[in-house]
Amino acid sequence: MRNIRLDLEYDGRNYHGWQCQPNRPTIEATLQRAVERVVNHSITIYSSGRTDAGVHAEQHVAHFHTPSRIGLDALPRALNSLLPNDIAVYRVFEMPMEWSARRHAIEREYRYTYFTDRSPSALWGGRVFWVRDSIDVDSMREAARYLIGRHDFSAFRSTHCDAENPIRTLLDAHLEQSGLFLHLHLRGHAFLRHQVRIIAGTLLEVGRGKRPPKEIRDILASRERERAGKTLAAHGLTLTAVRYREDPALGIVYRRYKTPLSVDNPSG
Amino acid sequence: MRNIRLDLEYDGRNYHGWQCQPNRPTIEATLQRAVERVVNHSITIYSSGRTDAGVHAEQHVAHFHTPSRIGLDALPRALNSLLPNDIAVYRVFEMPMEWSARRHAIEREYRYTYFTDRSPSALWGGRVFWVRDSIDVDSMREAARYLIGRHDFSAFRSTHCDAENPIRTLLDAHLEQSGLFLHLHLRGHAFLRHQVRIIAGTLLEVGRGKRPPKEIRDILASRERERAGKTLAAHGLTLTAVRYREDPALGIVYRRYKTPLSVDNPSG
Repeated sequence: MRNIRLDLEYDGRNYHGWQCQPNRPTIEATLQRAVERVVNHSITIYSSGRTDAGVHAEQHVAHFHTPSRIGLDALPRALNSLLPNDIAVYRVFEMPMEWSARRHAIEREYRYTYFTDRSPSALWGGRVFWVRDSIDVDSMREAARYLIGRHDFSAFRSTHCDAENPIRTLLDAHLEQSGLFLHLHLRGHAFLRHQVRIIAGTLLEVGRGKRPPKEIRDILASRERERAGKTLAAHGLTLTAVRYREDPALGIVYRRYKTPLSVDNPSG
Repeated sequence: MRNIRLDLEYDGRNYHGWQCQPNRPTIEATLQRAVERVVNHSITIYSSGRTDAGVHAEQHVAHFHTPSRIGLDALPRALNSLLPNDIAVYRVFEMPMEWSARRHAIEREYRYTYFTDRSPSALWGGRVFWVRDSIDVDSMREAARYLIGRHDFSAFRSTHCDAENPIRTLLDAHLEQSGLFLHLHLRGHAFLRHQVRIIAGTLLEVGRGKRPPKEIRDILASRERERAGKTLAAHGLTLTAVRYREDPALGIVYRRYKTPLSVDNPSG
């Protein structure tokens, strides 16, 4: 038996998220069908985690068990010829049988991208969240710093989140401005349901002057979802990396893209 | 009467190019309908030029005449609320009545983007041309230099091109590597039909070692279309800028994006 790891990217706009659902297209179900056609037996897809409907990934890590002897060069070629254009497997590895993409992940990184201009973007519309009004990025930066560290993030998770423990450690939270794009980068061991999108919504309200940055501390302390801001749209969110200790990918391409949305600063 | 200039961007994959065609969605027809609904009379759209089916634009310049007194703030807002998500008007100006987007344009810039990896890109697929095999970028750079200057580009235009004069001046042609993306940037007063895509196809054959860089000079001299390479797919092509002397846009935002597809260099 072999344990085959797949690093894949996808544009999530045509999918109802990662996880298999009856009668709805999902990334997992689409990937599973392609793998089953290649290895010619039914398989289970294991994954580093789930993404919501509409969320994109630059690196999502999955694996499956197979007795197939298919080569590691032939496999991505075969999979990509079967997969639709908005899902691509770009790296494969053979891992020890006990290796798990979910349990062995030590860090996950997300990017939430605001597009800040008076007009929407036709070229990036499905990958960014449009913010028409001007925002105070310095306030957002200050607010983001209060989120870093080990906290009870109950106020920043969906009321449907089923995690038993709402305590998470945010290793980094910072904003990167690049022309008309404003990227919120979050890095942590693991995230709660809707955590990134609720943080993105709350920071946006800070940027709009509706809340002072320090209110973040009160929201965290309250542990009440209704104290935080709105859950922003899924299409602005991208899973950018999943990291492992002694990662075979580290020596090759740890991430496929770094800052794909960088642009010139507009003047005037 | 007023002469209103519109700077717009679009993702061309859902359109049969710029120019109106019966029973097919085009950018021009879609824009015209939106403008007519806003100003409430029929109009003619004048444009800096045409783009082929599937080609994208970061800056395309159009204009129309109207007696409407609509404000320059209200106009893009009204247009964008009517336009589909893959077309956006991001800047408007009132120009002298005699100003023409086509005749007064002094330079046009295009970018053709190759995506160079063994696997295709799910996130950029509709905006880049996938090149699976490794290519020699230095040879392509050398070949591109032979194209700069005033030449008879008969070998590098579609056999359906209806321009009377095949002589064009290419002011710049260079390659920019950015992680897995390789951008071919071309700048000139004006271009012939399919000129950029045939240049992109010919340079790719140089990169693959099928032609020596110097052959570009022979192809130019031959003036024969069949001597040059293939016309590469439209979806890798983006009109990035149209420039004017004394451009009101120069002081504001000359280009909305600079290198939107820049990424980190993969290591190893």
